[in-house]
Amino acid sequence: MRKLLVIGIGTGNPEHMTVQAINALNRADIVLVPRKGADKEDLAELRRDICRRYLSNPDTRLVEFDLPVRDEREPSYTKRVADWHDEIAATYRDLIREHTDAGGSVAFLVWGDPSLYDSTLRILDRLRDIAGFPFEREVIPGITSVQALTASHCIALNTVGNAVHLTTGRKLKEGFPENADSAVVMLDGDMAFRTLDQDKFSIFWGAYLGSRDEITISGTLSEVGGRIVETREEARRRKGWIMDTYLLRRKA
Amino acid sequence: MRKLLVIGIGTGNPEHMTVQAINALNRADIVLVPRKGADKEDLAELRRDICRRYLSNPDTRLVEFDLPVRDEREPSYTKRVADWHDEIAATYRDLIREHTDAGGSVAFLVWGDPSLYDSTLRILDRLRDIAGFPFEREVIPGITSVQALTASHCIALNTVGNAVHLTTGRKLKEGFPENADSAVVMLDGDMAFRTLDQDKFSIFWGAYLGSRDEITISGTLSEVGGRIVETREEARRRKGWIMDTYLLRRKA
Repeated sequence: MRKLLVIGIGTGNPEHMTVQAINALNRADIVLVPRKGADKEDLAELRRDICRRYLSNPDTRLVEFDLPVRDEREPSYTKRVADWHDEIAATYRDLIREHTDAGGSVAFLVWGDPSLYDSTLRILDRLRDIAGFPFEREVIPGITSVQALTASHCIALNTVGNAVHLTTGRKLKEGFPENADSAVVMLDGDMAFRTLDQDKFSIFWGAYLGSRDEITISGTLSEVGGRIVETREEARRRKGWIMDTYLLRRKA
Repeated sequence: MRKLLVIGIGTGNPEHMTVQAINALNRADIVLVPRKGADKEDLAELRRDICRRYLSNPDTRLVEFDLPVRDEREPSYTKRVADWHDEIAATYRDLIREHTDAGGSVAFLVWGDPSLYDSTLRILDRLRDIAGFPFEREVIPGITSVQALTASHCIALNTVGNAVHLTTGRKLKEGFPENADSAVVMLDGDMAFRTLDQDKFSIFWGAYLGSRDEITISGTLSEVGGRIVETREEARRRKGWIMDTYLLRRKA
């Protein structure tokens, strides 16, 4: 049976790789490296850098491929994503069949950790539905942007004995969670923190966390919110893409 | 100025160590290794094992010490913990003064990641209040039990576009969060999942995650809850201690 190794690679610092991840990489027959558009070339380059640094098995081959593009003409968001994931699953199946035999092993290098707002595990679930294509999965945990964020700010995620809410920018617009004093916001292209009472929250913000381009800003929203908006826009223009996340904490 | 390196070491698998953590370990003049009571000897042994595997700097010294014990006679929980943290901070200060000079560096090996339900960063905040003892901190992220849990179960933490609540056993007893369909429960000695409607939630449970003794169980609470309770009690009796965590997910 084929083995699919889903490896968390951390968030932009190649030294986020764990020993377990390095060993898993070296157990693979092939490593799938998606090429992205020019804007995300940095991310493809990080994967190549990781392979250059840590791959010592001469029999492991890198297989670069083009990820299918989402069909933005499809009006239903759910169907748009489902169709796209089906296409990616079919691409994986074809690549795996072409480049490995029935007992081969395949590494997927997943940004951050495979558990957190990543679709690789869900896409592999779709592979299961393809007849005559049995496989085992093994997941190797990786450093998430949440841990990179708190490490760079030298802070804990939770206050003593209290809960933490992990949420999205879209959901934050419905209000800050009542049942936590700390919230991590991901997938927020809209800087939803602007919708909150700016005097009541501290923010710990970070972009390109772990990488050489890392930027961090922290303070009360009313004091640093504007600077974060400007810094984020400027960085996105300069690099062509941005990945950022932040922790909000209710002020005592 | 002294440098305090707060290094996340993962959750029991020495291969959870990142390259960044290994490099930080080797930059330290001393590594503080707390001896625990006999019941947590396994945890001290993991730290020693990590040093044996990854420490290649011949000038780095291991300094073992006894952690102060919490004074259970103090009736106020808050004061009990505050006094205890003050005592640990004083112990750190004395050890650091004894074993390093004013430009030295000190490694703290923190279980999991320093951001998540760990008190090391808070204790180091107390060191700041001690006059004439300036230092810099550097935090190195590590694999948390949450990522080890989801990796072992081959699952994502979140469902598509939805929030995740990280909470404690005590808080879960107040009810499952309304604003998330997934909740991670930590610090639960009481198996608070028993207070929920047993047909409405799936559980993904794990103990000693990442270690050779790892145990995982998953399923609907009504089907596997009893088995988790028995397994947990039996394991705790056998080993003398237990560390476990779990993800609950509202059934569709």
